[in-house]
Amino acid sequence: MAASAARRRREVTENPSPARRAGRRARRERAPVTGPAYITRRIPTYELVSEEGLALIEAQAERILKEIGIEFRGDEEALRLFKAAGAEVSGPRVRFEPGQVRALCSTAPRQFTQVARNPARSVVIGGDHTVFSPAYGAPFVRDLEGGRRYGAIEDFANFVKLAYLSPWLHHSGGTICEPVDIPVNKRHLDMVYAHLRWSDKAFMGSVTAPERAADSIEMCRILFGADVVDETCVILGNINVNSPLVYDDVMSGVLRTYAAANQATIVVPFILGGAMGPVTPAGTIAQAHAEALVGVALTQLVRPGAPAIYGNFLSSMSLRSGAPTFGTPEPALAYIAVGQLARRAGLPVRVGGALTASKVADGQALQESADSMMPAILAGANFILHSAGWLEGGLSMGYEKFVLDCDRLGMLHVFMKGLALDENAFAMAAFRETGPGAHFLGTAHTMANYETAYYEPPLADCKSFEQWRDEGEKDSLQRASERWRELLAGYEAPALDPGIDEALKAFIARRKGSLPDMWH
Amino acid sequence: MAASAARRRREVTENPSPARRAGRRARRERAPVTGPAYITRRIPTYELVSEEGLALIEAQAERILKEIGIEFRGDEEALRLFKAAGAEVSGPRVRFEPGQVRALCSTAPRQFTQVARNPARSVVIGGDHTVFSPAYGAPFVRDLEGGRRYGAIEDFANFVKLAYLSPWLHHSGGTICEPVDIPVNKRHLDMVYAHLRWSDKAFMGSVTAPERAADSIEMCRILFGADVVDETCVILGNINVNSPLVYDDVMSGVLRTYAAANQATIVVPFILGGAMGPVTPAGTIAQAHAEALVGVALTQLVRPGAPAIYGNFLSSMSLRSGAPTFGTPEPALAYIAVGQLARRAGLPVRVGGALTASKVADGQALQESADSMMPAILAGANFILHSAGWLEGGLSMGYEKFVLDCDRLGMLHVFMKGLALDENAFAMAAFRETGPGAHFLGTAHTMANYETAYYEPPLADCKSFEQWRDEGEKDSLQRASERWRELLAGYEAPALDPGIDEALKAFIARRKGSLPDMWH
Repeated sequence: MAASAARRRREVTENPSPARRAGRRARRERAPVTGPAYITRRIPTYELVSEEGLALIEAQAERILKEIGIEFRGDEEALRLFKAAGAEVSGPRVRFEPGQVRALCSTAPRQFTQVARNPARSVVIGGDHTVFSPAYGAPFVRDLEGGRRYGAIEDFANFVKLAYLSPWLHHSGGTICEPVDIPVNKRHLDMVYAHLRWSDKAFMGSVTAPERAADSIEMCRILFGADVVDETCVILGNINVNSPLVYDDVMSGVLRTYAAANQATIVVPFILGGAMGPVTPAGTIAQAHAEALVGVALTQLVRPGAPAIYGNFLSSMSLRSGAPTFGTPEPALAYIAVGQLARRAGLPVRVGGALTASKVADGQALQESADSMMPAILAGANFILHSAGWLEGGLSMGYEKFVLDCDRLGMLHVFMKGLALDENAFAMAAFRETGPGAHFLGTAHTMANYETAYYEPPLADCKSFEQWRDEGEKDSLQRASERWRELLAGYEAPALDPGIDEALKAFIARRKGSLPDMWH
Repeated sequence: MAASAARRRREVTENPSPARRAGRRARRERAPVTGPAYITRRIPTYELVSEEGLALIEAQAERILKEIGIEFRGDEEALRLFKAAGAEVSGPRVRFEPGQVRALCSTAPRQFTQVARNPARSVVIGGDHTVFSPAYGAPFVRDLEGGRRYGAIEDFANFVKLAYLSPWLHHSGGTICEPVDIPVNKRHLDMVYAHLRWSDKAFMGSVTAPERAADSIEMCRILFGADVVDETCVILGNINVNSPLVYDDVMSGVLRTYAAANQATIVVPFILGGAMGPVTPAGTIAQAHAEALVGVALTQLVRPGAPAIYGNFLSSMSLRSGAPTFGTPEPALAYIAVGQLARRAGLPVRVGGALTASKVADGQALQESADSMMPAILAGANFILHSAGWLEGGLSMGYEKFVLDCDRLGMLHVFMKGLALDENAFAMAAFRETGPGAHFLGTAHTMANYETAYYEPPLADCKSFEQWRDEGEKDSLQRASERWRELLAGYEAPALDPGIDEALKAFIARRKGSLPDMWH
């Protein structure tokens, strides 16, 4: 399916002029985008919870679904679908017999391909694969010089460009920051356009209203062709459950819109433990499991076989202030268990991210991000939203944080390759060449391997103290500030067929013209 | 053994005066030292490398030991012991048949207790237990106001006090920084005294010369009693192998000194990949395995049953500059494999630490520390040196870094407890109380659990943006600067029997008087 779609996509955008083709090739050769389209893991998952423990969590989720149930508020179509599938529906409340929801999920694919504008950048989501996607949803942006301010469409485009330039981000993301300078009911058009125009990586569509989701899909039809979109996943929608145990009509309406178009939905229980779920992690994990499976089940009732991702967003909270906390150990443990549960359910999983409560890209921010990212890696997460840029509990998108996070994503690429244990890796010839007490620097083995031996994080300082001092004692935040500016200065847009560009612009103009501006 | 030693130790230091006993109790009640003496893991280890892969690494280590061998330079006694044990000795070179070294290690205990001055603070090293110990060996210290400077005995005492005050450090460490203001050949006396006087946690002795190791042990005899020391581990010595494949006479001499006194040796291959070992991780792991086992074997030849720790210090290097790098993925993978190998060998393992190449406690520093600490946790590390304070590849000990690292150690305590999966954790009553859409904040379950529900890192900011801004926009480095000063200001020394204190001082004066000052 992916291959044929990719072929067709190439037909759609192929440029017949040899001169322009050569120009495009030259641009491609200059392009700094050198990383893999996605990661194929070669390390095992971390099996934190025993099989017995996982069965206990699943049983608790079944108890919740049978005894408490989940409400679909204001969405008669969702209720009709669940009733027709044999669930017990009473008002907005839907209850399920044990095993029923999981059976409804069984038609969802274990893995699927999201086709990108550049077919070499299409991503496989599920199985042994991992896709890193930028942070999502911040109303504010921050950089070292400019401080914190509301996000604008220029910031949005900047982050799309930075994500395009990173070899370690596989995905362009969605609402990479809120472009607050554009009306609420129109900004999705500019956001989708920015993803399509300034990047060629796969991306996410609007989820703030079913008609905005439909617009996002329609723009994909213009780009990819309607028949391709009907057969192929080209866009993702990230749906937050109104936890605890509620889907409102916007969320379930958006979910149904994407599923009906055969596009992927990420179903994300959004739980701040103690508020939208119990204060004890096991209870929130079971609740999230129930909520996620019911959402995936709905996608399958709308269109069996539609791609869906079992999502999860859990955080802990400060018991002094009630504020959410990130990078703490309880969610870390939960992420790993969530990965195990999703695997047992046979679904791709979104969990984790480079999360932090810190306002700036300081030690706290990077530590908390490391501590919320590594559990997702250990969990076998297939799609990791918020992989770069997140600050301030998601309220702010940081330019410096973005490039620092990208550096670490590069390291995770290497980590996920695992240890090579072949003849070359064991280097017996080098031991024979050196013997006790002699250094390995000049050995034939070192010479043959040093270029690929170690990941070297570009922003990390490992210079001598004296060199670092003489170069101005710059910390990682200052180095990152220089880095993102350099990257943006060197950015070149990937080519886009002018006819498609015009068609997209015409669609946007028509849709914008048909709606009065709404600012909240 | 530990219990009887602890009993005896109490006899040694028991204070018969009821008034002074009450005073001591009051001090103890005020003491902020509330953490556990050590961690008992309730999470599984991460099995990165398959059984087949581990067997390959072991086979490569055996090949190195048989074909290349290891040199003990200038230590006739070590050579004599190995020859008597059946090894092939030729000049300083010792070669072993496959299986021979491992068999020699078989008398080393799988776990042992290091008795602390405060018996409630004795640590169990090995098995399912983990002990966090401060960073070790930096010639420089750094704080935010004072910048970087040579370490002094006052800094040394400050860090011993900070480690004593942390609920999350189980150990007082060793050369917590170099007291450069004291002659090289005498500073071990002041260092051991500082550990004994300003802390009551377990600690490490000198390894810079066999006679200094002997002095360290002698001071323990004064404190604990000679018979206790002969039966019980009360001090650790950390021996770095002169990798590749060499022990010099100082290192092996110190090792024999500790082992002969029934004290613990940590045997640490110290490998910067590409320099002191191959540039490919598998080769360095196999080399380190060979080097560590041979050192442990020597402890057992000196005194069968003497406690020993299978240590490891691996780092990657910058291929631009040759400088060591930390927190990179290759050592992270290696640490996990090292944990697996040590478990198979039945030995306690030291690996990992909060390592970084950064000069300051910035984002790089905390991220790299997180990324070199978590693999050690996953590896099942039993003793983690460099758990707090390390900066600049070990050249500098940071005050702010120290308290930031301690905060994260607190988080790791929670992580290593794993997920509770009992009736209370599943919180079914809370779901019944709330139902869909209702918040959990006021439920009986939340009320009953909120005080212990989430770890709250004291230095992490999770305030609202406005509150953070109005309080001066402090980053984690600035908050840490305030924190360590507050901690030191509130420090109170644990009580020490005045007679023992006098005896220690007299010993130090006698030893110092017997030696001319040496400054290098």
